Amino acid sequence: MPKFMDVHTGMKGVTPQALKEAHQADLDIQADENVDFQRAWGDPESGMVFCISEAPSADAIRRIHERAGHPADEIYPVPVEV
Amino acid sequence: MPKFMDVHTGMKGVTPQALKEAHQADLDIQADENVDFQRAWGDPESGMVFCISEAPSADAIRRIHERAGHPADEIYPVPVEV
Repeated sequence: MPKFMDVHTGMKGVTPQALKEAHQADLDIQADENVDFQRAWGDPESGMVFCISEAPSADAIRRIHERAGHPADEIYPVPVEV
Repeated sequence: MPKFMDVHTGMKGVTPQALKEAHQADLDIQADENVDFQRAWGDPESGMVFCISEAPSADAIRRIHERAGHPADEIYPVPVEV
């Protein structure tokens, strides 16, 4: 399954609890699109959040994040990894 | 040790071998700044590369990436993680 990094730019002030809840909202519905959200990292100061996932397509990720209430600003396939 | 996500925007066409070599160039000198580069993901099409690391500061990461020949375009502390 392809890997993707998606980026959110508007999550200023994100707390550990808020990120946990946002991630859980994704996990609750990700099976609908066969997405596997693996990890997310957030910077409360800039509002940037980065999520790594495996998914059939960027659109599948886009739909899950939209339905969960936090649309991604950018989604990149990351077929190269070290 | 704080975690950081740094972003490179100009690595179009990055291959697995090229990313491996770039990462190794960081690893070879990271001890000078007490940085621990853990993983990197690249998108050859857009040229985006994302690196996760632990480091004493963003400047420490900046210096290592510069000396290794691939300066980071953005460096974010990511104290929040799920």
